[in-house]
Amino acid sequence: MEDGKSSSQSAGKPIRCKAAICREAGEPLVIEEIMVAPPCPYEVRIRIICTSLCYSDITFWKLTVPPACVPRILGHEAVGVVESVGENVNEVAPGDVVIPTFLSECGECEDCCSKRSNLCSKFPFKIHPWMPRYENSRFTDLKGEVLYHFLFVSSFSEYTVVDINHVVKIDPAIPPDRACLFGCCIATGVGAACKVANVEAGSTVVIFGLGSIGLAVVKEMTGGGADYCFECVGLASLVQEAYASCRKGWGKTIVLGVQKPGSQLSLSSFEVLHSGKTLTGALFGGVKAKSDLPLLLKRYTDNELQVDEFVTHEVKFQDINRAFELLMGGKCIRCVIWMDK
Amino acid sequence: MEDGKSSSQSAGKPIRCKAAICREAGEPLVIEEIMVAPPCPYEVRIRIICTSLCYSDITFWKLTVPPACVPRILGHEAVGVVESVGENVNEVAPGDVVIPTFLSECGECEDCCSKRSNLCSKFPFKIHPWMPRYENSRFTDLKGEVLYHFLFVSSFSEYTVVDINHVVKIDPAIPPDRACLFGCCIATGVGAACKVANVEAGSTVVIFGLGSIGLAVVKEMTGGGADYCFECVGLASLVQEAYASCRKGWGKTIVLGVQKPGSQLSLSSFEVLHSGKTLTGALFGGVKAKSDLPLLLKRYTDNELQVDEFVTHEVKFQDINRAFELLMGGKCIRCVIWMDK
Ligand SMILES: [Zn+2]
Ligand SMILES: [Zn+2]
Ligand SMILES: [Zn+2]
Ligand SMILES: [Zn+2]
Repeated sequence: MEDGKSSSQSAGKPIRCKAAICREAGEPLVIEEIMVAPPCPYEVRIRIICTSLCYSDITFWKLTVPPACVPRILGHEAVGVVESVGENVNEVAPGDVVIPTFLSECGECEDCCSKRSNLCSKFPFKIHPWMPRYENSRFTDLKGEVLYHFLFVSSFSEYTVVDINHVVKIDPAIPPDRACLFGCCIATGVGAACKVANVEAGSTVVIFGLGSIGLAVVKEMTGGGADYCFECVGLASLVQEAYASCRKGWGKTIVLGVQKPGSQLSLSSFEVLHSGKTLTGALFGGVKAKSDLPLLLKRYTDNELQVDEFVTHEVKFQDINRAFELLMGGKCIRCVIWMDK
Repeated sequence: MEDGKSSSQSAGKPIRCKAAICREAGEPLVIEEIMVAPPCPYEVRIRIICTSLCYSDITFWKLTVPPACVPRILGHEAVGVVESVGENVNEVAPGDVVIPTFLSECGECEDCCSKRSNLCSKFPFKIHPWMPRYENSRFTDLKGEVLYHFLFVSSFSEYTVVDINHVVKIDPAIPPDRACLFGCCIATGVGAACKVANVEAGSTVVIFGLGSIGLAVVKEMTGGGADYCFECVGLASLVQEAYASCRKGWGKTIVLGVQKPGSQLSLSSFEVLHSGKTLTGALFGGVKAKSDLPLLLKRYTDNELQVDEFVTHEVKFQDINRAFELLMGGKCIRCVIWMDK
């Protein structure tokens, strides 16, 4: 209701609000007032309720070579409320609770229509700093300088604009500090185990890299010769280590961590043939945003998925840099950042 | 019967016979008289009926760096008759028609007992120049110099010795010039399509590299974005090309060609994650020698598998170097070499 009202007042106009801006790679984010343009056709403006910090935010926060770019608004795991919608948006309305997703599901392309792929080919995943459909920005600072987007989400802002293909409407009864994790870590981990690897009960699984994607995959840890190895950090060297550690004959290495652009993976081609091992990768755990996320959320509300334990910390928006310190310190699994507290 | 008789005369004694010896890498094979020692316990001495030439023979014939070694008896696609058996061999008897295989199936190890692997871990596949169990040779030339084995088969000889784990008894009614192809090319190609890739009807398939392994995989050829890419030559660069050519989202690249030891495969780790593609490899097409070859042979005798068209040429043993020229010339798919003609 409150959102419906605020929507009717603000719809069609720029919104002035706070955002945490990455102005220099690796430097603390700067909280500033910014202007968020109204949504264009097929776009949705969202008031973020809370967002959580993921390793991929840190990877791109640190990045100093292309496709790095500043000033930028990072953040891609979030939940929010629709403030207003652009033309031709019928799927959601002001007041709806939504998860913005970095993968598109247009529902029409060959990939979206196939059960075998979650990589929409009409609006393909790219590491670029714009809105997906118009290739421009909805953010400016108070000097009028353009601020770049991140992964089509940019949730480290009180308001953001997202393409309708990147929005999933969810049950508003789900606690937002749990729902936000479904925007990346839970979907990636659970999807990888269930959809990509088809991990069977009794399989040995080794997870390379800390972080909550790793924890979400599967709990059992075993010695050498794992049936499944999940790489969750985004390091080529770790992928190679995972490949070496998986079981000859049937071992499967699944790459989940967002890799730095340009990094090369070197495998012995002799080993690839003679080991019978498999290497694959999956963005978002092979999960289709609109088709699969509601099913994963239902598994959470039915108590089939444990999510609560992943949230080890929470901070106020003004303390967002503390979340970076916590995640990099290694003791934090997920830190939820509350926008209005 | 004739073999049973010759067996009773020759069993337990060295056999003097002809073999085609690779004395220098890349030089024509030299046909010489050699001595073939009697089989040790768990070994079988086989009179080769015919053998065919495979790209892997050529790869190792040309190889000048380790694990290259000369003088060596190449050849690994063959059919023959058991001449005599060593102690503890009950599975075959003199006179049985058999296919020697470069992969072992001990039937007891974790891999042999699993449906997911064809890579016996008790007698693992290795590129070394010896018998698998005792790590020594059964061949000497007439000066007493040791001749090296190849892939546990060494079929370019009138007689060879093979470990019982590497021998498959077959129906003697199957024409030997067809049966021999099941020792590598047919098993690799058909196995890769059916067991490793699970190619469905209607899939697009691209085969990288000529040769009969490639042809045996699947016939359809299509444009970019293949569902399945098979690499059949053994070149790292071709594996990379195949990987680049397969469909994002679900494309699978299967490495079948024996790779030169030491060659490295370089993939963009970003691409591995973001493409959802899969890379895997399979020795012998994932086929278990003793469990699966008889089933493949039955599909041939039931006219479900076309094999005849693969045999484009045949030569006498004395003309074995002509087979090398034919295969390298590109117009030959498989050239059968008859030992007794
Ligand atoms: Zn699509
Ligand atoms: Zn993430
Ligand atoms: Zn075994
Ligand atoms: Zn071969």
